[in-house]
Amino acid sequence: MEKRELLYRGKAKDIYATDNPDVCVMRYRDDLTALNGGKKGSFPGKGALNRRISDMIFAFLETGGVKTHFIKTINEYEVLIRKVHILPLEVIVRNIAAGSFSKKYGVPEGKPLKMALLEFSLKDDALGDPMISPSHAIALELVTEEQLNQISGVAMGINNLLKALFDRVNLTLVDFKIEFGTGSGGNILLADEITPDTCRLWEKDAGVKMDKDRFRQDLGGVEEAYREVANRLANY
Amino acid sequence: MEKRELLYRGKAKDIYATDNPDVCVMRYRDDLTALNGGKKGSFPGKGALNRRISDMIFAFLETGGVKTHFIKTINEYEVLIRKVHILPLEVIVRNIAAGSFSKKYGVPEGKPLKMALLEFSLKDDALGDPMISPSHAIALELVTEEQLNQISGVAMGINNLLKALFDRVNLTLVDFKIEFGTGSGGNILLADEITPDTCRLWEKDAGVKMDKDRFRQDLGGVEEAYREVANRLANY
Repeated sequence: MEKRELLYRGKAKDIYATDNPDVCVMRYRDDLTALNGGKKGSFPGKGALNRRISDMIFAFLETGGVKTHFIKTINEYEVLIRKVHILPLEVIVRNIAAGSFSKKYGVPEGKPLKMALLEFSLKDDALGDPMISPSHAIALELVTEEQLNQISGVAMGINNLLKALFDRVNLTLVDFKIEFGTGSGGNILLADEITPDTCRLWEKDAGVKMDKDRFRQDLGGVEEAYREVANRLANY
Repeated sequence: MEKRELLYRGKAKDIYATDNPDVCVMRYRDDLTALNGGKKGSFPGKGALNRRISDMIFAFLETGGVKTHFIKTINEYEVLIRKVHILPLEVIVRNIAAGSFSKKYGVPEGKPLKMALLEFSLKDDALGDPMISPSHAIALELVTEEQLNQISGVAMGINNLLKALFDRVNLTLVDFKIEFGTGSGGNILLADEITPDTCRLWEKDAGVKMDKDRFRQDLGGVEEAYREVANRLANY
């Protein structure tokens, strides 16, 4: 496999072509961003930690029957992935009220929700990733109804798998954001990453934040939290 | 029937108790507000025009099988209504992209939607009436799942009735906002008002705005537009 040109530069990862048109290299960077790119930071080794965490989680989900873009780890910062066309929807699953949900609806952070909630955002930085309802996403042809039903079911399944995984390492999965893409043949694959950048993870008893909220809210100890999450998952 | 104390002061209407605990008086005022109360105006006779328009529409919907709070007109500004407990959800139906929908999702104003879209907002001025998805509304116990299914069906039925009504008077129903309440016994009734304050109405051919957007966007001719809508409905 030969790494070729840069195809896409995201906020914390880059995607490169390879000599195989169906395969890409995803390279994690050390960048941290928040507030739709309005707040920037980084720490050395952050990309490698996220690569480790996400690879462990994607491998775990594959074992649980979830189809993902993950092929294999290349090195500390890089992963080989199936090339996908990313669906323009961010899929958010919430177990406990926090973040934008708490602010928007006046629900105290930390309040468990009656049921796991599925939420969609239009993936568009210029528009600020606005929340969108399922019917609107279909009407705007972001996804077909069939695709939407499929990713909704898969997202809820992923939530159950991840809640159990994090519970075993003494973390509460508050909420998370995932993205899906269509691979060759149109099949839907879990794509992007699952890391403390994209999940809210709280210490099970003390409620200490172990995710990007430490950066968003200037709580300090960002690197230590990411490293702790990686080590717990690795040592489980 | 004896009018008694003020129960509720809204942005453009007041609700009074009567000597019958199941019946209220709804009084339209001449006030116009936009931008969640941030922009204020009025013109003499506006309340009477909206009372006329809404009464005609509610009577038309009752004929079409929709259960509403409307009992009868009292005078130019006042209506007798069934007392309801208002559900804390604004129900929006969109046929054509406009307003916040266009801005939020980058869809040009005037673009017809593939299908009529139902949208909900949490009715909470302090939070800015944020959009809410059906599952969130149920999880936050704003409505039960059964109530949500019922109001969704009724709202779509109202859309079909209103599109036909306005079409006959040469207006295009772009979108509208309605509210529901539970009456004595828990049955769901259409409440609030349906007027150019709560609908987008465009001249069928020329696309001229005949609704509160004339006030929101400082287009002038607000009073003339409201009067024209009232006269067309009355003369049909």
